[in-house]
Amino acid sequence: MTMPVPDAPVPGALPTSEPSGGPSRPSRLDPAVAAGLRRTPDGLVVAVVRQYDTGEVLMVAWMDDEALHRTLTTGRATYWSRSRGEYWVKGETSGNHQYVHSVALDCDGDALLLEVDQVGPACHTGRRTCFHTELPVTGVAGDKRKARS
Amino acid sequence: MTMPVPDAPVPGALPTSEPSGGPSRPSRLDPAVAAGLRRTPDGLVVAVVRQYDTGEVLMVAWMDDEALHRTLTTGRATYWSRSRGEYWVKGETSGNHQYVHSVALDCDGDALLLEVDQVGPACHTGRRTCFHTELPVTGVAGDKRKARS
Repeated sequence: MTMPVPDAPVPGALPTSEPSGGPSRPSRLDPAVAAGLRRTPDGLVVAVVRQYDTGEVLMVAWMDDEALHRTLTTGRATYWSRSRGEYWVKGETSGNHQYVHSVALDCDGDALLLEVDQVGPACHTGRRTCFHTELPVTGVAGDKRKARS
Repeated sequence: MTMPVPDAPVPGALPTSEPSGGPSRPSRLDPAVAAGLRRTPDGLVVAVVRQYDTGEVLMVAWMDDEALHRTLTTGRATYWSRSRGEYWVKGETSGNHQYVHSVALDCDGDALLLEVDQVGPACHTGRRTCFHTELPVTGVAGDKRKARS
């Protein structure tokens, strides 16, 4: 077996201006989990949220250590609102709850994948998912590949 | 029909320290598309990458305007490397190409969902996806919901 050749950023080779900070706020998160996080300068990791059975990608939000702790220990998806500077439990005001089935961290510790059971729409516009603006892909590589599939 | 009650951050209500910047680097991106982006202070939006047919979430990466332009116009997924400060075409060095089927922007313009055909592993560790560290969900809400499904 040959070693895979990385074409993604390699953790450990980061200049000091890159994501590296510790938690921004006090947190009860298990230190073993916290040690694996690679946070933005604001102390956040990105969370991708997916419907557990259909695989639909519903939304993206942000978590700090404490939001992750609350998500793992309550089973209710909890995020950090960058605009309001506070925690929000998804569905708390809208009723569109997210019951958490699983949480996985990615290889370089800066992204989470949540598998949830989403009640009602995930998007604040009332749509099921937040990804509803298609952008035009005109590239030849994509077209060629599509023609073969 | 009742209006959905937002429990997500509402665009337009952001303090000036929040994501809002224009492109950090010159770009040929269609101005109509660029106008819909809500970038981090570093001029980036997050891209969630998914296998188009199985729905598997493969990885998360970052794009600036020009990376998005190149992705849309070449059909090959192209990102901005925050650690190296340069563009990278996924698979260029590893051979693990991503042929782009579709690109969608989310409701508040700060996240993209790419549906791709991933050749080989997406992760630089050689695994198919980057999300391979499961975190323990102990919360009651999740368990109750699971028991019913």
